[in-house]
Amino acid sequence: MKALVIATLGLLPLAGSALAEEGPFASQVEARQGIMRYYAVNIGTLGAMAKGEAPYDAAAAKVAADALAGGASLDTSMLWPKGSDKDAHPGTAALPALWADGADVGGKAKQLRDAAAAMQAAAPAGLDQLRGAMKGVGDACAACHKDFRAES
Amino acid sequence: MKALVIATLGLLPLAGSALAEEGPFASQVEARQGIMRYYAVNIGTLGAMAKGEAPYDAAAAKVAADALAGGASLDTSMLWPKGSDKDAHPGTAALPALWADGADVGGKAKQLRDAAAAMQAAAPAGLDQLRGAMKGVGDACAACHKDFRAES
Repeated sequence: MKALVIATLGLLPLAGSALAEEGPFASQVEARQGIMRYYAVNIGTLGAMAKGEAPYDAAAAKVAADALAGGASLDTSMLWPKGSDKDAHPGTAALPALWADGADVGGKAKQLRDAAAAMQAAAPAGLDQLRGAMKGVGDACAACHKDFRAES
Repeated sequence: MKALVIATLGLLPLAGSALAEEGPFASQVEARQGIMRYYAVNIGTLGAMAKGEAPYDAAAAKVAADALAGGASLDTSMLWPKGSDKDAHPGTAALPALWADGADVGGKAKQLRDAAAAMQAAAPAGLDQLRGAMKGVGDACAACHKDFRAES
């Protein structure tokens, strides 16, 4: 049994794939940045429609909004271990304030989940509805970034 | 209204954050690699318990297994545009075979979702159950990597 477990673990998904970053929390930083990039890809699809840079497409808007809502619903708590801030790790812009007493990270995460759920309802309903839901999404992104991400 | 939309989009989540990679599909590649890293972080937690490197902790195992199942349930289809293979993009190991006719990507994705769901049931139930579900997860990872990821 133990041999089987170990043999299986030899096939772990990213064994042999290099991390872009180094440092004690390189995996966590890469994972959380990738999930934010997943948000961004899908917000980009919705935003291009909102701005008229791409034609409104209800099906594509639904895929993007569903993806955003799915991503925002993930538990990413394990990707933010204490100490994985920009003072400790060159590859992240996360401010130590994120880990300070009273930092309402949970509330900000809920703001994004709620905004994404609103977008999920709005995006397939029509371009005006999609546009109407963009501000909530942008506000949720900004709420967290303003307090917890270093200016670049 | 349009000004509001544009102002909101100025707050887009990753405006101002540099991509680790460059190329036509840098965002998609970063997002998909980050999501796989999210799998790996959580499989690592489960694997450490399976191997006896960390004490079995039902609550922590549940968090990790729930995260793996949540990640495996995301629609990531938009992260794999045709042409985002290793021949076109230096930062990915994705083989062109992934986009070939008959490549059963959907079936392999389902294999991971099913294995993650089995782990979700098993992980909080006990160490033996967790160990029993590891092979399914490893097999699902390997099934996709064997066919679609370049050897490193």
